[in-house]
Formats: sequence, C-alpha cells, structure tokens
Amino acid sequence: CKDSDISHDIAEKGEYRHFMLKEIYEQPAAIQATLADRLSGELPAAEIFGPKAADILSEIEAVQIIACGTSYNAGMVARYWFEEIAGIPCQVEVASEFRYRKAAILPNSLLVTLSQSGETADTLAALRLAKQLGFRSTISICNVPGSSLVRESDLVYMMNAGPEIGVASTKAFTVQLVALMLLVCVIAEFRGADKAGLKELIRELRRIPEKIQNTLKLAQQIETLAEDFAEKHHSLFLGRGSHYPIALEGALKLKEISYIHAEAYAAGELKHGPLALIDSEMPVIVVAPNNLLLEKLKSNMEEVRARGGKLYVFADHGAEISSVDGITMIPIGDINELLSPILYVVPLQLLSYFVAVIKGTDVDQPRNLAKSVTVE
Amino acid sequence: CKDSDISHDIAEKGEYRHFMLKEIYEQPAAIQATLADRLSGELPAAEIFGPKAADILSEIEAVQIIACGTSYNAGMVARYWFEEIAGIPCQVEVASEFRYRKAAILPNSLLVTLSQSGETADTLAALRLAKQLGFRSTISICNVPGSSLVRESDLVYMMNAGPEIGVASTKAFTVQLVALMLLVCVIAEFRGADKAGLKELIRELRRIPEKIQNTLKLAQQIETLAEDFAEKHHSLFLGRGSHYPIALEGALKLKEISYIHAEAYAAGELKHGPLALIDSEMPVIVVAPNNLLLEKLKSNMEEVRARGGKLYVFADHGAEISSVDGITMIPIGDINELLSPILYVVPLQLLSYFVAVIKGTDVDQPRNLAKSVTVE
Repeated sequence: CKDSDISHDIAEKGEYRHFMLKEIYEQPAAIQATLADRLSGELPAAEIFGPKAADILSEIEAVQIIACGTSYNAGMVARYWFEEIAGIPCQVEVASEFRYRKAAILPNSLLVTLSQSGETADTLAALRLAKQLGFRSTISICNVPGSSLVRESDLVYMMNAGPEIGVASTKAFTVQLVALMLLVCVIAEFRGADKAGLKELIRELRRIPEKIQNTLKLAQQIETLAEDFAEKHHSLFLGRGSHYPIALEGALKLKEISYIHAEAYAAGELKHGPLALIDSEMPVIVVAPNNLLLEKLKSNMEEVRARGGKLYVFADHGAEISSVDGITMIPIGDINELLSPILYVVPLQLLSYFVAVIKGTDVDQPRNLAKSVTVE
Repeated sequence: CKDSDISHDIAEKGEYRHFMLKEIYEQPAAIQATLADRLSGELPAAEIFGPKAADILSEIEAVQIIACGTSYNAGMVARYWFEEIAGIPCQVEVASEFRYRKAAILPNSLLVTLSQSGETADTLAALRLAKQLGFRSTISICNVPGSSLVRESDLVYMMNAGPEIGVASTKAFTVQLVALMLLVCVIAEFRGADKAGLKELIRELRRIPEKIQNTLKLAQQIETLAEDFAEKHHSLFLGRGSHYPIALEGALKLKEISYIHAEAYAAGELKHGPLALIDSEMPVIVVAPNNLLLEKLKSNMEEVRARGGKLYVFADHGAEISSVDGITMIPIGDINELLSPILYVVPLQLLSYFVAVIKGTDVDQPRNLAKSVTVE
C-alpha cells in the first residue's frame, strides 16, 4: 500500500510549534490523500476495502466496531451513520471490555477494528478472539501499513493520513471518520439505500477538506477563548446524536493534553445528574449544529445558564444563537448534517491545543500517556 | 398490583437523618419484597411479568434496554447478564438519544424500559416511538403502579420497592437489578441455558438481602473514609465488565449529591486518556471483586499509584489486596460473581451519602435536580 505524499514530512514540525498543531492543520491534506485513490466515480467501489470486499460487504447483516480511546469515539459517530444511512444494526465497544466478556454475536456480523497504529494491544486481542466467535468477516481501518491489525484482518482500509506523532490523536480521527463514511456508503448501496442520497453525501464528503480549511481560520478566536479555560479545573461537553461522540472526543482531548477534568454527556442526560455540578467554575461546551436537535439543545443550554454556568457554543449561523451574557458563540460554516461531526471536532482540537499551550504542558507527549498502547 | 409493606412508611424518615440513608438501609427489605411474590419455585415463572409473558419471552431474539440516569446504569449491568447468561444480544441506550435517531431494530426485539417513577419523559417517548418501529413486544420495570410506562407496556414488572423519596436513587437501582436478573433467567431458560446453573444463581439471589445487610455494617468505616473526599473536587471510578456500570453509578451518586466531579471509566481505557489526569488531588475508586479481571485491575491500580494517585479499593478478601501506602482496601463479603454488582454498589451509595453530609449539601434534594424528570 503506497504511502501518501505527506508522510515525507516525518518528524519535521516545520513552521509549527508542536506536532499536534501541525497534524491539526494537515487534516485537509490528509483527507484529500485518503480519498485520492478511493473515489474515482460518484460512489466508492467495494474494492477499495480489498478484492474480496464486494462478496463480504454485500452479505453482512450487522456491524460490531471495536476500538480504544479516540478511535472508539470515531466508532461511536459511525454507529449513528451505519444505522441511519445503511439501516444496519451497529454496536460499538471498547476493546478491553469486549475481549473479557461473553458477548452474543449477531449472525453475519462484520467486525470493524479501528486503530491508528494497528498495534493497540486490546484491539488486536479482540480481533484474534473474534475469529473464534463466528464473525462473518473482519475489516481494519489503520494508518500504519504492515501493522498487526492490517496483517490479520480479511479486509483493510489504509488511511494514508501520514505519520501522526502527537500522542493526542487529531488527523487520524477525522480520517477514520472519512474512511468509516466510505464503508457506510458501500454497505448502504448493497442494502438498497437511495443512490441519489448517497451520491450527494459523497459530493459533500469531497468538500470536507475545504470546509476544514475554513474552520481552521477560527484559530485566533479559539486561542483567545482558551484563556478562559486555562485556569479552570473542570469542563462539561454536551452534544446530541452523532455530535455526542464529538463531545466525547473534545473532552478526551482536553483531558489528555491540558489535564483539565473534562467530561462529555449526551445533552439529554444533563437533568439526570450532571446538572448538579454546574456552577460558574465549570464551563460548558456545546456542540450544536443547526439540526433537528437544536431546539432541544437550546433548552439544555438555558438550564446551564440559569444555574450560572458559562456556555461556549459551536454552532452554524442558522442556529440563531448569539453571544449574550453567559454565552459565547463560535460560528462554524454550513455543512451537510450527516457529515458535520467531521467538521465540528476541529475547533475542539484547537481549543484543547491552545489551552495546553497556555498551561505549558508537554503538548506532544502528555504525562502518563503513550502514543500507541501496545501493552494491556 | 399490591404494594409492599414497606410502602406504609411513606414520607417518614424515622430514625434516619435523610430519606436517602433510610432507602439505602431499606434495600434488604425492598429486595425481599420484590422477590416475595415472584419466587415460589427454584426458578422464576415467566408469568411474573404478565399473563402473555411466556408467549412473548419464548420468542424474542434480541433485547433493547432504554432508560435514563441511574436506570441506564442498571440496564448496562443487565447487558452483561443478558449476553453471558441468556446468550441473547442486548443493547442499552439513553432514552434521549434513542428517540431522536434512526435506529436499526433487530428482528423479534424486546424493548425493556426502566424507570422508578414510570413517568420519565424521554423513556416514555421512546416507548411510544418503539411501537412504530416494529419491536416484538415491550416490558417495563417500574416502581409506581398505574404510571404511564406501566399502562402502555405489554408486560410489566412492579418493583414493590416502596416509595423512593431521595432524589438520588438507591433502592430502586438494586431492585431494578434483581428484577432484571429474574428476566434474564426466564429468557435464559427459554433459550435452553443450563438449568442447574440458573437454579444456583436464583439460590444466591435469595441471599442478596442478607449480604447487603452485612455490607451495611461497613457504614462507619466508609464514613471515616468520606472525610478524605469531602475536600476533593475530582474523583475517578474504575471497574471492568459488569462492574464498569457500578463505577458509573458510584460516580453518578457522588456527582448528584456531593457536587464532586466524579467520572467513571472502564479500567482498560485508563491508558487511553484519563491517566493524564491522575495526581494526588484525584482520588481513584476501584470496584474490584475477585474475578477473572482482577489481575488486569491490579495492573491498572499500579499505574495509578505510580503516578501519585490515592486508591480506594472495594474488593473481597480473596482479592489479596491489602492496605499499603497509597491504597485503602475496603473488604466486601464473598458473593457469586454474576450477582456481585448488586452488592458492590451499596458501599458506593454510602460513600456518596457520607461525603454529602460532611459537605453539608441538601442530600435528599440536591441542587438543580428533580426526582422524576417528567419534562424533556
């Protein structure tokens, strides 16, 4: 599998202060690179996942995603996509849980493993276990050619995202999402989904690099906003639907490199517990694209504001949220609703980066963490 | 449906300082009350869930649990049970997420809704939606006779736990777990599980009240330990397998009434992010029964300790963990491994209670929270 051009920059930060920042900015190019060889027509061909892919993907009736950390969050986004777009049941589980319990496997299930390195110990163990559990087949989405997951899976998608050096994963996450969307579209087509709708989705997918590029222009605004967070010890991230995993990923990034105790909640669960924590010392970040759930989110936001919580809202112009007392609105460009998780994670990556820089942490090698968790 | 005797104590705290403490101590009686009419033989009869239950439960091929807050955590425990004991695929989702996405429903699925009040708005909306989505049938496990969920479900299990007044749910949680275990055993029998194993499980289930009674004797030790937490702003709860949801529930309790930012993680995910947060200001609570996962947990604990984190470990004597520098061990009595989540949550309820009392919060009516979330 040929590496992408951007891999030649290996271990060179160039103009960037940290690898993480470089990798955040590489996302448009990394997504272009991952799409380059895969999208010649209006829809992706099954063969981009391997020569046997059409036979396998046309027969599967359920999807089980296994991953850890940031890759798990990518899997969580994909779950919403698999069920909504392809109408196929999809479960996601952290590898260390899946491998040690007696799971009931659905007939004709596809196991999807996600790992940037392809060497994550628990994910690899889960893949090996899966072969005894009667999965129909296995596919791995990886960034490192020749890695264990790649060698041991029936089907493979090489991300071609170029090397990721920063311990906190950024471009691997968005490229995983793009790869997962291609897989969703291929399976959806086999399952008789409306082709025009899928083609529209793919057209919009091609425009993601440009939209991320525009979103990166928010860097300065987000850097200013980061000052509000640097002295805080807590933070709550809220989202609904496929943006709940984006809230999870935003919180994970802030934990990893800024050492701020950030936690994500599906916004509808707010009233069932975490609302008790809200006060002026707990900033609340809301991922609020202008979709059907916006009105619900607005009511969640009112609850937070009424209790003295400070809100930072990432939303598009259509959301008609304006910066008023207690609410800071960060406008994100318009995007297809299904694809918006890929865009909305980018400002959250920038936020965690700038908070870490202000706090003076070791951004690329945060304390206690390793890039690839190759032991249990 | 007849109420249990303990319901006559309504709104009387008696000797207890708070309803929550009373309800924690009522758990042995509440579990006895919920089992009283249901277990005449060695195995529960399907009819305890309603006259049509045998027809329905013998035909289902998948389980979907929907709930919010503490009830969601009970559902998460049951997922491990359904798949391991009954070999039936089981998914759990928070109601506010399920109702607003396009979920792919498995054929012959049973929808299980969990709600103490039977009036939780999102759960009720999910039940109503489910009727259009082609579920085979619906069952509700509730504590309030005549509630909306009870009226609108095909099958019903009345918990008979007596009224729960404290906003932070305690006895409703353990009684939900007992009810779920009965449902798991009935479905497992229909699916041909080994009867001797199920009978052994039910024998052990009858002994849970006695084991909880013994565990409540730890109150004084836990009250002392609570002093370590009262001045902390953070806490991490770790568990594996069916004790991961117990960690979730322990963290939720501490959030709700002590306003401490407590978060739970499946212990295997520690290295994938939260380990960066660990320092001496973040006490770590570990739910560590002596099972197959114990060795893995011990390695997670070493990671925490090596980074200056203070550990509080709830484990049985067989775990061979002793209180040494940085580790406080709280011994829990022996119990059947599958049932141990029902027991291990009790000391965590006590911990959150005593921390709240030391902090002087309004234990029974914590800020910002309502007992039943009957609006979205």
